[in-house]
Formats: sequence, C-alpha cells, structure tokens
Amino acid sequence: MPSYHAPMRDARFIINEVVRLGDYSDLPGFESASRDIVDAVLDEAGKFAAEVLAPLNASGDQEGCIRQTDGSVTTPEGFKRAHALFRESGWGMLSAPEEFGGQGMPHILGFAVEEFMSGANMAFAMYPGLTNGAVRALLAKGSPDQKMAYVPKLVANEWLGTMNLTEPQCGTDLGLIRTSAELQADGSYTLTGTKIFISAGEHDLTENIIHLVLARTPDAPEGTKGISLFVVPKLLVNEDGSLGDRNAVSCGALEHKMGIHANATCVMNYDGATGWLVGEENKGLAAMFIMMNTARLGVGMQGLAQAEVAYQNGVSYAGERRQGRALTGPAEPGEKADPLIVHPDVRRMLMDGKAITEGLRALSLWAGLLVDLAQKAESEDERGQADDMLGLLTPVIKGYGTDLGYRVATDMQQLWGGHGYIVENGMEQFVRDARIAMIYEGANGVQAMDLVGRKLAKDGGKAIQAFFAEVDAECKTASDNEQLSDLAGRVGKANGELKAATMWLMQNGLGNPNNAGGAAYHYMHIMGIVALGLMWLRMGAAAVKALEDGAQTDDSQGRDFYEAKLVTGRYFGERFTPDAGALRRKLETGAETMMALPIEAFART
Amino acid sequence: MPSYHAPMRDARFIINEVVRLGDYSDLPGFESASRDIVDAVLDEAGKFAAEVLAPLNASGDQEGCIRQTDGSVTTPEGFKRAHALFRESGWGMLSAPEEFGGQGMPHILGFAVEEFMSGANMAFAMYPGLTNGAVRALLAKGSPDQKMAYVPKLVANEWLGTMNLTEPQCGTDLGLIRTSAELQADGSYTLTGTKIFISAGEHDLTENIIHLVLARTPDAPEGTKGISLFVVPKLLVNEDGSLGDRNAVSCGALEHKMGIHANATCVMNYDGATGWLVGEENKGLAAMFIMMNTARLGVGMQGLAQAEVAYQNGVSYAGERRQGRALTGPAEPGEKADPLIVHPDVRRMLMDGKAITEGLRALSLWAGLLVDLAQKAESEDERGQADDMLGLLTPVIKGYGTDLGYRVATDMQQLWGGHGYIVENGMEQFVRDARIAMIYEGANGVQAMDLVGRKLAKDGGKAIQAFFAEVDAECKTASDNEQLSDLAGRVGKANGELKAATMWLMQNGLGNPNNAGGAAYHYMHIMGIVALGLMWLRMGAAAVKALEDGAQTDDSQGRDFYEAKLVTGRYFGERFTPDAGALRRKLETGAETMMALPIEAFART
Repeated sequence: MPSYHAPMRDARFIINEVVRLGDYSDLPGFESASRDIVDAVLDEAGKFAAEVLAPLNASGDQEGCIRQTDGSVTTPEGFKRAHALFRESGWGMLSAPEEFGGQGMPHILGFAVEEFMSGANMAFAMYPGLTNGAVRALLAKGSPDQKMAYVPKLVANEWLGTMNLTEPQCGTDLGLIRTSAELQADGSYTLTGTKIFISAGEHDLTENIIHLVLARTPDAPEGTKGISLFVVPKLLVNEDGSLGDRNAVSCGALEHKMGIHANATCVMNYDGATGWLVGEENKGLAAMFIMMNTARLGVGMQGLAQAEVAYQNGVSYAGERRQGRALTGPAEPGEKADPLIVHPDVRRMLMDGKAITEGLRALSLWAGLLVDLAQKAESEDERGQADDMLGLLTPVIKGYGTDLGYRVATDMQQLWGGHGYIVENGMEQFVRDARIAMIYEGANGVQAMDLVGRKLAKDGGKAIQAFFAEVDAECKTASDNEQLSDLAGRVGKANGELKAATMWLMQNGLGNPNNAGGAAYHYMHIMGIVALGLMWLRMGAAAVKALEDGAQTDDSQGRDFYEAKLVTGRYFGERFTPDAGALRRKLETGAETMMALPIEAFART
Repeated sequence: MPSYHAPMRDARFIINEVVRLGDYSDLPGFESASRDIVDAVLDEAGKFAAEVLAPLNASGDQEGCIRQTDGSVTTPEGFKRAHALFRESGWGMLSAPEEFGGQGMPHILGFAVEEFMSGANMAFAMYPGLTNGAVRALLAKGSPDQKMAYVPKLVANEWLGTMNLTEPQCGTDLGLIRTSAELQADGSYTLTGTKIFISAGEHDLTENIIHLVLARTPDAPEGTKGISLFVVPKLLVNEDGSLGDRNAVSCGALEHKMGIHANATCVMNYDGATGWLVGEENKGLAAMFIMMNTARLGVGMQGLAQAEVAYQNGVSYAGERRQGRALTGPAEPGEKADPLIVHPDVRRMLMDGKAITEGLRALSLWAGLLVDLAQKAESEDERGQADDMLGLLTPVIKGYGTDLGYRVATDMQQLWGGHGYIVENGMEQFVRDARIAMIYEGANGVQAMDLVGRKLAKDGGKAIQAFFAEVDAECKTASDNEQLSDLAGRVGKANGELKAATMWLMQNGLGNPNNAGGAAYHYMHIMGIVALGLMWLRMGAAAVKALEDGAQTDDSQGRDFYEAKLVTGRYFGERFTPDAGALRRKLETGAETMMALPIEAFART
C-alpha cells in the first residue's frame, strides 16, 4: 500500500521564505496569515490529507462510483464520511471571501492545501475542487440574488458545484454546443440537451448540486458568440432557501475511465430543466473562462500532486528494496545486496522527481500569490502586472506541469520494476490518475496554443517581456553567488533560447500561423524549463540566505534541508536546461514538413 | 472500438527494398523466402491479426484471466479458439528450424509477423512469443533428448513455454535467487521455491506447459555463478512422448496488473517439482540469456506494435473528428468544423507517431536479419560482425523502442481528448499495455547499463566503431542527394554527438563508474536517435531509388508512398535529431550532483 505525507516543510519554505508571504501583510486578508497560522493550517491540512483521504485512495479506485437504477450515484465507501469531515473542518472555505462565509485567507495557502488533498486522493479532491471554480464564476458574474442563494452553501461545501461544457460533438470547440435554453415567462430558462464528461455531475456527498451549464438561446448567433451561462440546481431552491422540487436534470450514465474512478464522471441529461442566466446573454464563454482559469491552475496542481505522491513512494522503495551492488563497490557489505538508491539511474529518476515536484510547487504557489495580487494589490498597475503574469503562467502550469506530473509518476512506477505494474502496490494508479490532467480543462496542446496565440501577443507582449526581465534579474543577482552561479548561467542560457524562440515566432508565426501552431508545444516546454529555472534560482537564494542567517540544526528541517535545495537546483540546471536549446532548434524548423502530407499518407495499407 | 490493420505495405518495403532480403538468398532457408512468399506470408499474417486477434483485444482486457479454485487458469473468451487457429496456421513455427518441424524461414519475416500479432493483441501474442525464447534456449543448451522431447511440440505450439526467473526478493539481481534444485538418484532434480510475475505460467490454451526455471543446487556458489537452468514440464512426459503425471508445479495466484490483463501473470509454486538440468550446472544464467535476448527484441517489438495500433486509431480519429478551424482559414467551409488533422499540434503528434513507428520497424526488422546473419553468414567474420551489431542494438531496440512506444501510445490517446480516457474507446488500453514493455525483460535502465557497461566495452569498442562507420557511410552517400542531404546533415551531427558522448564515457566512466551509470540512460537515447536516423537514411535511399526506377502508380502503394517516406524522414531529422545534443550535454555534467544527497534528503517532512 502506498503512503502519503504532505510535503509541509517544503510548502512552508516556499510560502515563508521564497514567495515571502510576510512581505504582503498589508493586503486585505493577508494580515491574518501570520507564519504561525500558515504553519498551523498546513499541519492540519497535511494531517487530514494523510489520515482521512489517503487511506481511501486505492479503495476508491478499486470500488469506483455506482449509478443506481434511479439515476442516483453512490460514491465509494468512506467518501461520504470523509466529505462530511472535510466540510466540518472548513477546508473548502479557506480562501473564499468572508462575506460569503469563507475565511478570506490568501490563495497561496488554499493552493498548498489543494495540493495536499489532491496528492492524497485526487478523485476525492475534485469534488470540492470544482466547487471553488463555480464559486468564482458566480462571484464574478452572478446576480446578487444568485450569489446569496448559492455561494454561501457552496463555500460551506453543503452543496457542491459542477461545470457543464462538453457535449458529444464538442469538447475544445465550444462553438458547436447544442444544448438549448428557452426563456420562460417567469424569467427562468428551460434547458434541454446532453452534456458528457461531467465530473462530480451526480453523487451522494451533498444534498444538492449546483450545475453551471453552457447553452444556447433560440436566436443566439452561431459559434462561441452565442453561448450563455446558466445555473441549474439539482434541487430547486425555494425563496426561503429551503430545498424544493427535483429539477429535470439527471445522470444518464457513468463513464468507464482509465483512472480517477472514485470521481463520478457523468453523462448529464437536461430534459427541460429549469435554470437561470448567469451574467449577460451570449457572454457565457467569458464567464465560464473565469471558472476554467481557476480550474486550470487546479489541474496543474493535480499534476504536481500525483508526481509528489508517486515520488514519495519511489523514495521509500529505493531505500528499502535491495537489488544489486553499487558500481563503486558494496555500500552495505553486511547485506546480500544494496538498496536501489545506490544505482545512478535510480538516482536520476529520484533527482528528476525531486527537482520537478519542488520546482512545480514553487511555481504553483507563486501563481497562488498572483491570484490575490491581481485582485488586491494596491495600484492598478500592480494588479494588471500580476494578472498578466498569472495569465502567462496558467497554460504553462497546466500544460508543462501535467506533462511533468505524468513523467514523474511513470518514472516512479518504473523504479518499482515489475512491482510497479501490480495494482495492489498503487504506483500504477498514480499514472492512470495523472494521465487525465494532461487532457481535461483544455488538452495540453490547447494550453500551448493559448500561450502562443493569446498570452504572448497580449498588449504587445508585455507579459512575456516582464517574465524575461524577472528571469534576467534573478540570474544577474545569482551569478554573483558562488553557490548559484552555475545554475544562473544555465537558466540564463535557457532564457536566451526562450527569447530567440519568441523572436522566431514573431517573425514566422504571423505570416504563417501554422508555424506558430507547430511551434507552440515546444515553446510551452521551453517556457516551463525557464519558469522552473527561475523558481530554482529563487529557492536557491532563499536557501543561501537561510544558511547565512545561521540555520543550524543539522537535520532535515535545518541546514540539510537548505543544502539539499542547493544540490537539487544545481541538478535542475545540469539535467533540465539543455532541453531548451533542442526544443528551440526543433520549432525553428517550421511547419512546412509537418503539414506537407495529405491525410491519406498517414493511413496504413 | 479501435481497429487494427497490419502495416503490410510498410513491412514489405523494409524487407524487400530497405533491408533487401533478396540479396541474401544464398543463405540457408533464405532461398525459399522469395518476394512472393514474403508477400503472401505477410498478407496472411495481417489478415489473421486483424480478423482473429484484434477483435479479442478489448474483450480480453475487460475479462482478464481467472484462476479457478483448483489452480487452473481460464483465459478470456475466444482465446482458446484463437490459439487453436494460430497453431493450425503454423504461425508459431515460421522461423523455427525445419529439423524440429519449423519452416526455417528468415527471422526478419518472423519478426514482422510477431509485430502484427502483438499490435492486434499483445496479451495474446505473449503466449506463443515466450515459447520462441524457450525453443531457442533448449536448442542452444538442451541435451539431444531434451530437444527431441520438447522442441517439436513447442514449435508446433502444441505445448507452450515459459521463463521463470523472478522471485519475491529478486528481479534484476538474479544472484539472490533461492529456488532450490536437488539431484535425485535417477538424474532428475527436485525443485522447491516460489517464482513470481511468470507470464503465461498457467492457462488453458495447451495441454502442457514447459517451464524453464532458474534455481540453485545445494552447494552452488553464491550469487549469479551458482544458478542453473532446469526444464520443468507441467505434465511429465513419458518416454514414448505421451503425457504422464501432473508435476508438483502450480499457479498459486494471478497478479492484478495495470494492463495485459488477458495474459496470465502467475505466482508459480514449485513444491518438489521434477525437473532436468539444461546445459551445465551453475551456467544457467548464460543459458537463460539466450532466451532473454530473443525476448528483449520481442519486447522492443511490443513497444513498436502498441505505438502502431495507437497511431492507426489516432489517424482515423484525426480524420473523422471535427473540432475547430484550420489556423489558415476553414479547410472545409461547408462543414461546421474542420477535422482535427488541420491543427499543427495534432500533426506534430501524428508525424511523431509515423516517424517513430516506421523507424522502429526498420530497426527491428534489420535486427531480424542480423539474427540470421549471426548464425548463417558464410564467414566467421561476418557472423561475428552481425552478432556484435545485434548485441549493440538489442538494448536500444528494447529500451529506446519501448520508451517511444509508450510515448506514441500516450500521444495518440491525447489526440482523442477526453474520449481517449474512456475505456470503451480502447486508446487507454494501448497505454496500459505498452507500459509493461518498459519494465519487463530487464527494465529500461538495465538496458541502458547493458549498453554502456557491457556492449560498448566489448572487444575494445569494435561494435560501436562499426556502428559509427555505418552511419558515417550512409550520411556520406545521402549527402550527395538533394532529397536526403538535409537529413544526412542532421543525422551526421547526431552521430557526432554520439561519438562525443562515447569519448566522454571512455574518459570519465572508467575512473568513476557512477559517471557511466548516470550517463547510461541518456546515452541509450542518443544512440536510439542515431539508429533511427540511420534507418530513415536507408529508407530515404530506397524511396529515392524507387522513384527514380519509375514507381508510377499515383496512390498509397506507389509514388505517394515513397514521397511520404521522404517527407517523414525529413521530419525525423528536423524534430528528433536536436535532442542528441541536449542529451549529450546532460550526461557530460557527470554524476557528482546526482549522487550528492543522502537518502534522508529525499524524504518529505
């Protein structure tokens, strides 16, 4: 059985010493996030994840969800009780606004907690995770009545939320949506259509479920400009807040999936269900994107979380399993064989896993800070800058982060050898669960196009220029430090590759957009490398400072912890940054060859 | 439901025009492999794979194998009948020697057929696949009596074979084997112990199963020098060849696995089972390696095969599924959306899949020729050269080939979006099945060590020098051709990286073997890139020749086929060769940082 230990020390390090949450204590809500509070919250969340959620991860996968003949859905044994505990502990409301019953804590803390929950049990964490996005969409676009009716219940996790976008004929291309919404005399709408792949679409965790649904009004323009957003509760809500009739929305089937078995992925049938318009008619896509951007960061974190739990179980196996001898001679001559960790190729996978998880954690938590800065920073300028940077990083965190999450999960399974392929050992579940994160909330290729086609170009490239400048500045500072100069040189070089790739895109992508499309995926990965390099520079600087300040305790909490950061950062420079140049050379070959063949040439005869 | 079409045209092209089987018609057995025969065999095998095996792939995965209370194992519905057909059609005996009932055909043909079977149904193909290895080990090391008793039955697939190496405490490190074998008065041995992960260990496809088992005699030296090989039939064989008593070997349990559900992976209990020594006492590992080397090539082909079937289903989805519009404007304005294939990032994955599958197929089939040349070439020199090259390529085909197989399977699932994650669509099975190929028959990290630690060093690097020379020569020839010069330049450059990496290993790996261990995986991938580059140069040259010779038919069998080869080769050069440099730069950073941290530094607190 695999185990999970929330990486609390690492999260504390990033929040307190790298992102330095304390420096922002003048922001609303941040004053209450003192170091003590942060530590206490992380401790409690870590305990909850490890003790309540992790033990249900394998059993939930084995058992899956069951649709009963009446269309109701039963979650696996223990999930209902775990969600009740989750709700009572208030984990769903950590970063929600206080006026709706939330605790108003910084998102960076909410993100850290979300990683823990997802690492312990991804299928479980999705239930409250999607609710966060629903809350955000309602807060941004809902009417005051809608906010009052739904948000406090969602924040309290008394009800849970869903997002209903996909239909059989459309996933990425939401312009093809067919679900219809007809205005009724009382101002409500009647929704008819079929949605598929709806995570948490039906379940027994809460009495009510609040669906946010994309649909088309009768005379809506074709394509994405004719899509509106509706809120459709499973049980109608009376004016006094009590629950009323069952709405005409139901789960028609559960999907059989490769992984995340414990999350109910539903076909949802809307048979004249009653819903209400959220925001303006035909502006539904923009509203849904508010939800989706939150969800994308959450999905990036799922990649990290699965990498983390797989890494932990890879580490423990590498220390326990004995096989072969160190190349330099027996490390433990008294035993019949040495532990796996003596083998350089096992080390390679472990160091990759360490460099990736710690780097992605820093990047995700930085994004958590940017979420707040984009809303709460003092000046409009600062808010704008944070929002731009967050927009730029979101596809990278989602796309690059989940690609790496799958890679680490796969490597850690590999390290277990044949035992990694056996269900009971749990390593293969991490791979199956991690796999979906590359696909949903916009497949990673779509993230790459979002980055290259939208985020790069925005405001004349303001965001990417700001990113270049941050990296350059960090490299410059680090280059003066003996412990960091090697890494700084390598990250600086990778940043140079990113600049060159950006220039190439400007010169070749506008005239022939296929050049941009053919380059996008590689570009996203170069940017991911540089972004993680930036994180390793910042973590390195924080480690150097802690060591200079006299971190003394010679244990995993003290000097050793910081020294390991310096080694891991050096490793990242050595073994990750060289890819930036190769990726740049690949994308610079352009799209001509890639696009040359007709479809018939791909078929086998 | 996914479909499978054996890539017959491509196999024919490689066998007849690239490897040019006709040039070797003076070798024993090759005279009967005329073009017509090759074509007919491939056609029949392709039909069998597509019509008999492919329809059982998804159902076999869903149903799995069942161990009955009496320890017998039932394979999924249809498997028994399919194996009877397989046996009757003689697919198992294609490349087996004629004196034991085989057809004595060249291995290149057997390899092509093996790919088809494995692409259609990997779990099925493993049953006869392992038998091939058992035949080879018995032919090499068995006594005349053993050969006579077992080989004809195995060749005829009347019985099937297994290999029993792994035990709970040992996989890679076979020196830790505990299963004991005690000599009896009649010259037989009594075997006692537990083997795990035994593919096809017990099943209902054949009446008898012939186990090849590694065990230790009482006074055997410790470690790998004390291991002997035994043949242990499930049913004892009487002197007249009839079947006798049930032997004391049984399946104690079936493993629950991530994939290849339809292959019975057994815990095998030897409770005083009767066996006979194969070859010399304490020389069992060398004997088993004969079987293992065949198996490794077969596993490499499994990687290719899963990539191929996933690719085919990726291609068909990319042509049918409509989502979004071409970046250059609607490709099919009459439809609501364009097919996926218009999107460059979808193309990237398809072209990757095409370049990888066709490249790996050429490499695997070349290895098939080398198997025969190593045994049958006229001069000892030629046989030695073929054997060396085969030894060098085996870990690359297994390690790099299965890494790429998993990558293509994952990419093709990605191309299907959310639908790729749904069990019924079959794409996720290809990923789960492909995954094991990276693990078993020596995990890919072990392949890398075999390449760097054993194959490179052998005879003062004779094999790698020969490989360099082949690549250089091919690059030189190709550089004069306008259609191939770009690819030749890029492959030449990658070969330069491989040479530099080899030099670095010589200078840094001997003094500190951890440098070799830390470099091995990257080195294997560089060599894989160069090997596939060599294949693309050879395929390019064959295509140029066919076009010059006047291949006229303007369809997928004629000019279009050859022109697509040239485009795909160019793509391989553009998008794969740049990695060689990055990998070389990574490995040249050495093992110091990689090995710096104590195990405690990896644990989370």
